[in-house]
Amino acid sequence: MLLVGESINGTRKQVGEAISARDAGFIKGLASEQDTAGAQILDVNAGVAGGDEEADMAWLIETVRSVSSTRLMVDSANPAALKVGVEAAIGNGGQVPFINSISGEQKRIDAALPMIAAHKCPVVGLCLSDEGVPASAEERFAVAARMHEMVSAAGLPAEDLWVDPLVLTVSADSAAGLITMETLRLVKERLPVRTIGGLSNVSFGLPNRPLLNRTFVAMCMGLGIDGAVLDVRNRQMLATVKAGEALRGEDPYCGNYLKAHRAGLLE
Amino acid sequence: MLLVGESINGTRKQVGEAISARDAGFIKGLASEQDTAGAQILDVNAGVAGGDEEADMAWLIETVRSVSSTRLMVDSANPAALKVGVEAAIGNGGQVPFINSISGEQKRIDAALPMIAAHKCPVVGLCLSDEGVPASAEERFAVAARMHEMVSAAGLPAEDLWVDPLVLTVSADSAAGLITMETLRLVKERLPVRTIGGLSNVSFGLPNRPLLNRTFVAMCMGLGIDGAVLDVRNRQMLATVKAGEALRGEDPYCGNYLKAHRAGLLE
Repeated sequence: MLLVGESINGTRKQVGEAISARDAGFIKGLASEQDTAGAQILDVNAGVAGGDEEADMAWLIETVRSVSSTRLMVDSANPAALKVGVEAAIGNGGQVPFINSISGEQKRIDAALPMIAAHKCPVVGLCLSDEGVPASAEERFAVAARMHEMVSAAGLPAEDLWVDPLVLTVSADSAAGLITMETLRLVKERLPVRTIGGLSNVSFGLPNRPLLNRTFVAMCMGLGIDGAVLDVRNRQMLATVKAGEALRGEDPYCGNYLKAHRAGLLE
Repeated sequence: MLLVGESINGTRKQVGEAISARDAGFIKGLASEQDTAGAQILDVNAGVAGGDEEADMAWLIETVRSVSSTRLMVDSANPAALKVGVEAAIGNGGQVPFINSISGEQKRIDAALPMIAAHKCPVVGLCLSDEGVPASAEERFAVAARMHEMVSAAGLPAEDLWVDPLVLTVSADSAAGLITMETLRLVKERLPVRTIGGLSNVSFGLPNRPLLNRTFVAMCMGLGIDGAVLDVRNRQMLATVKAGEALRGEDPYCGNYLKAHRAGLLE
């Protein structure tokens, strides 16, 4: 299970303020805490309202790289900021980052594909199109199939496309979780791509969101999801993921689970 | 999600002692606590080492019925005890109980089928055969398919066969959970039966078993499991099930989830 740390995200108030104020210490702290918690990838989003996203992205990535050698996921809907981010991640011997994200929206595909082709960046592909988020699982799957065709044509191996089935909140629509899970099932069954989710939207507007979030992550792990973008610093979420990995045979002899237990991380 | 309370089970030391001593108060307490916690079915197992299982079963069911009108699941590998249990459950206007269980073992099928046919008892069907627990998901599925044929021939509607994919502990075999989940997936995909699991074996021999158990229940809920036999009195397990029901669209407007939250049951 690929664990992507979600915390360096300028759309969150405190993080946005730190980016605007060039508070490097705060950002470095977020990077180090997520590394310590076991993030395998750090998502980096410089989307601060009223900010200069390209300049912010360059500073943000430089700052994160000064304390962490963890692989990055450059997160933006803005093609110019994505480009700046990818170059800042690769520069001076950095690893090729993930791109978060493309979708079935033609403009986003057109903007990101040349960069994906040039650097072979693994990419998150959201199951939404120019018409918005499709209501049915089959329509979301169709978007996934189209993204698979496009990135394959650009020379990206299928396993480097990470399809995100998208999730809306169950508080607005009881079927929201089901549609996400059904999309996940179809993609796993029919495409050689991988799957990932930013799953915490599912609980928006409901009490005890962490319970819903970790339960949903476990449900999606049962369906074979390959990665998740989440708060790796949340103890109970991480304990659920560790348990899930042991339960789906990704942790030989339950070694990581037992190690986490001895470190007191499963309480 | 069908919640079956597992606590009235003579193979557990304290319960076995209560059965041997005819301690009705203790047994009634177990029934009432599970009813309060939301059990929809009460499993009743009179398998006390050195006991007279038929007499124990009759007493146990009479005792449970004196405080609870919840539907029962008569749980025994012994055909004579099953028969006594079914009759004790039905007598004096009681509901037709579930039978726990048949399997692909010819002797168990032969013994239980006439009773299932006569009373149309819903039945748990374990995916094991005369050769033991099959190692692969396809072989377990084959047992499920065979049980489906047998009970159908006896006139039982497919939705009254509850297939249990069986789970062994991941501490002995890392693939144990995977095989269970793959069996579940195959059964859901190919047979019109329902699915259920006594899932807590998965964590045997490991620390923090409740974490593993509730994570595994959530994973199986993601795969569509229809019921579980579990300790409904375990708060965190029940919270996971409530969250899972909301997340898979079985709880319109998240009404039960919100009710449980207001009752302080999700903490």
